[in-house]
Amino acid sequence: MHDPLNAFALGGDVYLNGAETGPLAGLTFAAKDVFDVAGYVTGAGNPDWRRLAEPARHTAWAVSALLESGARLVGKTHTDELTRGIFGDNSHYGTPDNPRAPGHVPGGSSSGSAAAVAGGLCSMALGTDTAGSTRVPASFCGVFGLRPTLGVIPMDGVLSQSNTFDTVGLLADDPDILSRMGEALLRKKIKDVRPAQAVVLEDAMEASDPAVAAAIEAALPRIAEAVAPIVRGRKLSPVPLADWVEHQNAIQGREAWETFGEWINNSNPRFGFEVADNFLRGSKVSQRTLSAARGFRLRAKRWVQEALEGNAVLVLPTTPVTAPPVHSPRSVMWEIRHRIVSLTTIAGMAGCPQISLPLCKAGGLPVGLSLIGPRGSDALLLAAAKRIGKA
Amino acid sequence: MHDPLNAFALGGDVYLNGAETGPLAGLTFAAKDVFDVAGYVTGAGNPDWRRLAEPARHTAWAVSALLESGARLVGKTHTDELTRGIFGDNSHYGTPDNPRAPGHVPGGSSSGSAAAVAGGLCSMALGTDTAGSTRVPASFCGVFGLRPTLGVIPMDGVLSQSNTFDTVGLLADDPDILSRMGEALLRKKIKDVRPAQAVVLEDAMEASDPAVAAAIEAALPRIAEAVAPIVRGRKLSPVPLADWVEHQNAIQGREAWETFGEWINNSNPRFGFEVADNFLRGSKVSQRTLSAARGFRLRAKRWVQEALEGNAVLVLPTTPVTAPPVHSPRSVMWEIRHRIVSLTTIAGMAGCPQISLPLCKAGGLPVGLSLIGPRGSDALLLAAAKRIGKA
Repeated sequence: MHDPLNAFALGGDVYLNGAETGPLAGLTFAAKDVFDVAGYVTGAGNPDWRRLAEPARHTAWAVSALLESGARLVGKTHTDELTRGIFGDNSHYGTPDNPRAPGHVPGGSSSGSAAAVAGGLCSMALGTDTAGSTRVPASFCGVFGLRPTLGVIPMDGVLSQSNTFDTVGLLADDPDILSRMGEALLRKKIKDVRPAQAVVLEDAMEASDPAVAAAIEAALPRIAEAVAPIVRGRKLSPVPLADWVEHQNAIQGREAWETFGEWINNSNPRFGFEVADNFLRGSKVSQRTLSAARGFRLRAKRWVQEALEGNAVLVLPTTPVTAPPVHSPRSVMWEIRHRIVSLTTIAGMAGCPQISLPLCKAGGLPVGLSLIGPRGSDALLLAAAKRIGKA
Repeated sequence: MHDPLNAFALGGDVYLNGAETGPLAGLTFAAKDVFDVAGYVTGAGNPDWRRLAEPARHTAWAVSALLESGARLVGKTHTDELTRGIFGDNSHYGTPDNPRAPGHVPGGSSSGSAAAVAGGLCSMALGTDTAGSTRVPASFCGVFGLRPTLGVIPMDGVLSQSNTFDTVGLLADDPDILSRMGEALLRKKIKDVRPAQAVVLEDAMEASDPAVAAAIEAALPRIAEAVAPIVRGRKLSPVPLADWVEHQNAIQGREAWETFGEWINNSNPRFGFEVADNFLRGSKVSQRTLSAARGFRLRAKRWVQEALEGNAVLVLPTTPVTAPPVHSPRSVMWEIRHRIVSLTTIAGMAGCPQISLPLCKAGGLPVGLSLIGPRGSDALLLAAAKRIGKA
């Protein structure tokens, strides 16, 4: 395939025609290289995973659903190793270019999918989202991204990391296409329904860079006009959002170790240093820490539910920062990651859907405005994206 | 070069003729790929180190000394990544074959040097030794290996890991050649001097596999005949040797992080998972733990000095086990590593020289018998090796 952005994975030359007719006929899509395609190895961003894996026997449910709706698969895209990362900087395969922020990371772990969509290499793309892996690259690359309600899109045939957080993710550069993609994957019509209010999460605004908060601020009138009246002054969390991160990391890290630890022990694979560090942190999460984190998650779910009362959606920056430059030191990226997860953990902890809209720029770089809705409100968020449109 | 053992490093095609005449004329040597050779990149067993390094401007002192003595350099050999490992299983470049224990690891980190010597690809080889990196592959590959007194052979032009432990290491399949190599590097004649007694370290024997201890036991008459009367019943350490390991790891790990941490932070390099784990452990050593370890080292030095009183050398298995099979799980290797370091840490903590002699086999696999002498007794140990000869 033509790949000027290093968006497509090693062995990602995977082409499949879709059904001859269907609602997505004429559209193309790419799939993050964690989606199985029968007959091909799922590389998952790690050369030792690729080396040791057998070709997939079945095609992932989501890939099949898009093919059956008439879309054409044009390749498999780069991911952070085993989906562990939110910057898209893969130590083995390099960092896909961010077409809308050259010299800056595309965001990950669905890095290649977002870059391919932003660069016009396909109409839409499949990603996954555990702690922001679809929303972050959508924000950094200036495209639409949906993290659906936990569990509504089958994960069959997708390499899972952390099964209480993992979702399929949807990426497109056009809200109509995202919505049509959503219809195929959610198996329902997107009706033009609207929430009663749009509640700005002030604690999320405060946690963001001033330029990011200002850019979101400037976009609020469009939300008010297209979606619902804006409600100000509400805080989501009785504790700092930064405190959520340790609980997110504990649950996710421990689950990721349960998923991959035995394979790691048996094969001593190569990893970028940061990825190894993530796995090791997860391996060391104690039962006590895990229990505390699960207790916190129950409280966090309640806080999100309360904020959503009155048929509301929540408004917040997708990421509190724009994309950092490629090859930033690990210690710098660590701080930024912590800040990003303090916002992306909200929907993850609550199991709620979140959509990132490419409405804003800060310092000339894209940054997403996000709407979080109640569980099951995926269609509502897709309808809102259609109403609002692009920047 | 002809490399049937995967002993030579990527970019290891480095040939230099030695002086036309000299005591090593007619002999060939290889150098672990942590020794600089002017004009060539020192790869150090890690592809990102190799990628980011400039060609060396000067040739390492030890390489020059061998060249000046007439030996010919025939290549640079594989190492564990940045010398961090004692098995020789490099996740990027594979594991050199152990010609005397096929299917078993060669030992590391001077893995390629020991394999090349054991396989007859060169007369002798340069390694380094921090916590066993020359002695362990000598033991596993059934060749002679010398860890010299700390500081007696200049480390100029050698990639250092942990400067209070690092030494150049000498490997050869013939005790005469090892001795001549020692003369060139120690810049002194090896005279036929002998210690007054050979003290068996009973705690080291007890820490070893029964088959290893039995093999050492069977070799003691040769030591008595060639070197000095055997003294039995002496324990080296008032605490279990296993307790030494945590202190070794604390000092070595912290020093290694001080050496490489900034580079790791800036470049997020690829590492085998186990190597990343080692670095991370080192990065987390607290000042309190480090101070305690340094205090322990002072006591350990004293215990070794006391054991060496009366013009003694100490006798112990080089490794408490034979070489484990390649591709053993990481958790298994971890246990074995801990046991190995409980013996190799003795000379390292004390700064004393240790020579491993290929006198023994256990279960059909090589295992070294070691002599530790007082600091500065390198020539004495080399003379003992000549007297004892090979198995």
